[in-house]
Amino acid sequence: MTEIAFSKGHGTGNDFVVVADPDGALDLSDDQVAALCDRHFGIGADGLLRVVRSASIAEGAAALEADPAAEWFMDYRNADGSKAEMCGNGVRVFARFLLDSGLASITADQPTPIGTRAGIRSVSLDGDGFRVDMGTWRSPAVEPTVRARGISVARPGLGIDVGNPHIVVALASEDELAGLDLTVQPIVEPLPEHGANVEFVVPQEPLVVGGIGHVRMRVFERGVGETLSCGTGVVATALAVREWAGEGAPDRWRVDVPGGTLTVDMSGRGDGERVWLSGAATLVYTGTVALAS
Amino acid sequence: MTEIAFSKGHGTGNDFVVVADPDGALDLSDDQVAALCDRHFGIGADGLLRVVRSASIAEGAAALEADPAAEWFMDYRNADGSKAEMCGNGVRVFARFLLDSGLASITADQPTPIGTRAGIRSVSLDGDGFRVDMGTWRSPAVEPTVRARGISVARPGLGIDVGNPHIVVALASEDELAGLDLTVQPIVEPLPEHGANVEFVVPQEPLVVGGIGHVRMRVFERGVGETLSCGTGVVATALAVREWAGEGAPDRWRVDVPGGTLTVDMSGRGDGERVWLSGAATLVYTGTVALAS
Repeated sequence: MTEIAFSKGHGTGNDFVVVADPDGALDLSDDQVAALCDRHFGIGADGLLRVVRSASIAEGAAALEADPAAEWFMDYRNADGSKAEMCGNGVRVFARFLLDSGLASITADQPTPIGTRAGIRSVSLDGDGFRVDMGTWRSPAVEPTVRARGISVARPGLGIDVGNPHIVVALASEDELAGLDLTVQPIVEPLPEHGANVEFVVPQEPLVVGGIGHVRMRVFERGVGETLSCGTGVVATALAVREWAGEGAPDRWRVDVPGGTLTVDMSGRGDGERVWLSGAATLVYTGTVALAS
Repeated sequence: MTEIAFSKGHGTGNDFVVVADPDGALDLSDDQVAALCDRHFGIGADGLLRVVRSASIAEGAAALEADPAAEWFMDYRNADGSKAEMCGNGVRVFARFLLDSGLASITADQPTPIGTRAGIRSVSLDGDGFRVDMGTWRSPAVEPTVRARGISVARPGLGIDVGNPHIVVALASEDELAGLDLTVQPIVEPLPEHGANVEFVVPQEPLVVGGIGHVRMRVFERGVGETLSCGTGVVATALAVREWAGEGAPDRWRVDVPGGTLTVDMSGRGDGERVWLSGAATLVYTGTVALAS
């Protein structure tokens, strides 16, 4: 029986088992990852982050080609063991682990490139959290209607793609947001081919303070259900609200989610606009566990 | 900031943080327990078991008076931090910790008394699990009707009290059990004053093999929702099914729950009948965590 050391951490409540495997010696099967992520029989987490040198994993070659400084690769696995591309909250927890364990120096001034299956993500220190370059976004020009339990009539949604598809829906009030029952999957019509995460957002009052916009949202992730936070969903939400707010709306947004608060920065409207996501990342405890055989 | 060592374990999926505190030095506040039991921001568990000498905690005096051999006291806390009396699955995990950490010798032959807020619970080794004396039961003579989402008509329920109140409902088939939607609380009419856990049970075919009865059940715990297992609910289920099966029904029952399998032994029908619950208990990992201040 193999015993491994791990850390457990979260970013705005999105939680991960973190395993250091610099030399790529630990080839975890889907079943082993699923057993570790099980919330009653294992450690319990939304996913697992393996910290491996890009040079020690086949998938790291593309990362090193894109940026030879991308020493570390985030091998991100879903709770069911399947491989996943990227996770806006997970990459901050990954950065926290690199920094706290001394595997990498991450500063406020010079972004540190991290290899992921979705390409390089550059991370810098930002107060007690991290700021992550989330790349570019695009609008797939879909505006489906969305129905959900707890809101009386169908609402228009706005499609935003941040590497994965989102539909953002504006609600009228905090009461409406609180009354939403997301134990039941919202109905999106027409539904995009690969489905979509759905974000429900309420503008705060005042909407803009000191040049920073402020909204609150809840999210239903496809295949998962309601979650405490969704990094790409937060980015999509801020982009949709800026769009609705029209000309003169800020390029910096504070987004409150059930698990905490995140900040989205945009580089200015236009083709190929880049976005950044900033927020806290915390390591909660360390442990030792036997792998399932 | 205080760091503490802990173990994480489960009995049929009912999971607990276990903290050794022999000398009663660790007075955990409700908030600290709730933070440790939070499944995203903490360790995550259904409850916390503090392992303390009966002589080191005020509540242990009654245990020592009842049985001077009750060296250890199970300070059991719910996930919200509130104190709880007893937990049929928790006491096996408690016993596993005592045995594996060398704090007590637990054998198959000589039951080891453990102090709890519900009185002494005697535990013996039983294969790779433990057998726990669950005390006596009584029938509160209530037969309410129960409705639940997924079953078409109201069904009669049978009240059984095993230190806490249960209503047991027989279903007709595995399909009916599988189709039950326990994300919604079942409606019990009339509802006992302090509420009740509700167990839905399906007899297996054959019902009795080698003198052992066999049923499958799912449980909705008051104030919690559906759980993977409920020790007292398993005992109540076996008692109700024996009652329905009538004269000649066995005094030993195997009960399959979503989290595994448990065995109930009864001492023979009559006033003040004692019951025992047996099943596995597993320690999954160990760790170190900082307490919330």
